[in-house]
Amino acid sequence: MEKFINLAHGDGGELSHRLIKDVFVEAFGGGNEALFDAATLNIPGGEIAVTTDSFVIKPIFFPGGSIGKLAVAGTVNDLAVSGAKPVYLTCGFVIEEGFSISDLKRIVTDMANEAKKTGVTIVAGDTKVVERGSADGVYINTTGIGIYEENIGCSLDFEVGDAIIVSGSIGDHGVAVLAARGELGIDSPVYSDCASLNRMLGEVLHNTNKVRIMRDPTRGGLATTLVEIAEDFQLTMKINETDLPIKEEVEGVCDLLGFDPLYLANEGKAIIILDNKEKEKVIDILKEFPEGKDAVIIGEIIGRGKGQLLLETPLGSKRMLNRLSGTMFPRIC
Amino acid sequence: MEKFINLAHGDGGELSHRLIKDVFVEAFGGGNEALFDAATLNIPGGEIAVTTDSFVIKPIFFPGGSIGKLAVAGTVNDLAVSGAKPVYLTCGFVIEEGFSISDLKRIVTDMANEAKKTGVTIVAGDTKVVERGSADGVYINTTGIGIYEENIGCSLDFEVGDAIIVSGSIGDHGVAVLAARGELGIDSPVYSDCASLNRMLGEVLHNTNKVRIMRDPTRGGLATTLVEIAEDFQLTMKINETDLPIKEEVEGVCDLLGFDPLYLANEGKAIIILDNKEKEKVIDILKEFPEGKDAVIIGEIIGRGKGQLLLETPLGSKRMLNRLSGTMFPRIC
Repeated sequence: MEKFINLAHGDGGELSHRLIKDVFVEAFGGGNEALFDAATLNIPGGEIAVTTDSFVIKPIFFPGGSIGKLAVAGTVNDLAVSGAKPVYLTCGFVIEEGFSISDLKRIVTDMANEAKKTGVTIVAGDTKVVERGSADGVYINTTGIGIYEENIGCSLDFEVGDAIIVSGSIGDHGVAVLAARGELGIDSPVYSDCASLNRMLGEVLHNTNKVRIMRDPTRGGLATTLVEIAEDFQLTMKINETDLPIKEEVEGVCDLLGFDPLYLANEGKAIIILDNKEKEKVIDILKEFPEGKDAVIIGEIIGRGKGQLLLETPLGSKRMLNRLSGTMFPRIC
Repeated sequence: MEKFINLAHGDGGELSHRLIKDVFVEAFGGGNEALFDAATLNIPGGEIAVTTDSFVIKPIFFPGGSIGKLAVAGTVNDLAVSGAKPVYLTCGFVIEEGFSISDLKRIVTDMANEAKKTGVTIVAGDTKVVERGSADGVYINTTGIGIYEENIGCSLDFEVGDAIIVSGSIGDHGVAVLAARGELGIDSPVYSDCASLNRMLGEVLHNTNKVRIMRDPTRGGLATTLVEIAEDFQLTMKINETDLPIKEEVEGVCDLLGFDPLYLANEGKAIIILDNKEKEKVIDILKEFPEGKDAVIIGEIIGRGKGQLLLETPLGSKRMLNRLSGTMFPRIC
C-alpha cells in the first residue's frame, strides 16, 4: 500500500476502494455494510437521540488522546449527557493530500478502540481527499445515534436548591492541547481528560430519576456551558470558586499565562444538575469510575427568572460570569 | 452581524451562539432543538438506513447547484437508492476564517430549500472554524437517516436477463463543475444534474417489488458504480454504448478534452437494475418526473460468477470496463 494519501484516494475509484478496505473496514469491521450506500440498523421504536460534531483539533495527537479518540468520545458524550444510550456512529473524513497513511491508521485504530470501549458500533463512513494546502492534515465528522431507555433520562424539572456537580477537574484538555502545540513556550505535564462518559452517566441515570440536566463543558468551558443553561431555562445559579476542582498543574499554567480555567475546554467531564437530596448518592456513583473520581459539588440553583451565573469568591463576594467572548483558542476540538 | 467568519465564531462562546441563531436556526428552524447537545427524534421501530457524506466540492457555487444543495441531495440520494425514505439530516460545517457570511447564508438557504423540497428535516448541526489557509472556504458533512417502509425495497435477488436502467444523461455534473472551475479553458453551457431523487425512486419502489438494486453513480461515474455492483454480486453485465444517454454538449466537451463520460460524476442520476419484465413500467414512472425524463434501458445482466462489466460498441465488439483508476478530478463532490 502507498505511504501517503494522494488525490486518487478520494475519487471513488480503485484507490478509494482499497483505502476503505485496507484502513477502515480492517479497523471497524463490517465487510458487507461497506458495499452499500447506506447502513441498515435495527432500532426499537420510539425516541432516539441524534448529534453531529466535526473535529479539527490541532495537533491531531496530544497527551491523553488523538483526533480519533476525541471524535468518538466527543459524540458519545453529547448523546450520553442528553440521557440517551449511544449505539451507532458514522464517520466522515476530509484528508489532505500527502497525509501519512500510517497516521491515518493510528487515528482509525484509536476510533475503533474507543468505540469498542464505549459499546458503540461505527456503521457508515465517507472519505474525501483535498489538495495539499486545502486542509490541515485530517478533519473528522462523527454523527451519533442513541436510544432513550424507558423512564431513564433528565427531567428539565429544575427547582431552587438543586445541586450542581462537575464530574472532575476542569481545564485539563485545553491546557494539554495548547501545550502540545508548543505555543505556550512551556513543557506541561497535563494530560487531556478526553474520555467517553456514557457508562458512568448511564449508571447515574439508572440510579436516580432526579437529574434535571447533564451537559459536557467542551468549547467555552464550564462557565460558558453553565451560562447557556442559566439563560435557556431562566435560572440563577451560583458556583463557589473554592469548590472548583482544578489540578495544580493546570492552575500553574493558568497563573503563568493568564488563562481562566473556567473557560478552558474539557473533553471528559460532565455537569450534572439534580435534586439536592440526591447529590451525595450521585457523587458516590461517579467516584466509582476513574473518569469521576474527582467529582464534586460546585454550586446550586439559587433563583429563577433571570438567567444568571454567579461566582462566589473565597471572600464571599459574587461576580456575574458571561459566555466566553472573543477567541481564546481555535481548534481545541 | 459581522460580514466574515472569524475564529471566535467557532470557539463555542458568544459569537458561535449568535452565528448558530442568526444563520442556522434562522434557515433550518427548530429553536428548541438548538438548546441541546442532541436532537430527539421519533422513529418507528424496525430497520432504519444511515449514511454519511462529506462535501468538499470546488467551486462551492456552480451552474445547477451549490455545495449546500449538493450536501442535501447527495445524502438524500444515498438513502433513496438504498430503498429507504429519507427523513432526517444532520449537518457539520468546517469553515475557513475569512469566509463570507453572506455566502454562508446562501449555502444554508440552499440546504433549507432542498430539504423542504425533499421532505427531510435538518435536526442537528455543528460549526467549526479553522484558520485562514487550513480549509478551502467551507466543507460540509451531512449524515442522513431514512426509514424502511414495509414491503418496499430492493431484493438483491439478481437474475440473468435483468435490465439495467439509468435515469437520465450521464456526465453532466462532472463537466459542469470542471467548466465552472475555469480549468477547461472553455465556456460550457452544461448544468449540473444535482437533484434529490427520493420522490421519484420512492414512486418506483411503491409500484414494483422487482427492483434488485439501485445506486447513484457519483464519484467514479456510471462505469465505476456498475463495476462495483458486478464485483460485489459476481454478475456479468453488458451495457450498450449506443444506448448511453449523453447530452450533445457533454459529448462535445469530452471529445475535445479526452474525458470519458462513463467515468464522470453524476449527482442526480440513479442506476436501477430490475426484472426485465418490469422495465417498461418503470421507465414510464421515471419519465413522469423531470429528473427522469431521459431515463433509458442501457443494458442487462448476461451471466453470473465472474464480476465483469462489458461495453458493447456500435460495431458489436465488447470490451471490459474497470473502475476509475488514477485521479480524474479531485473535489467533484
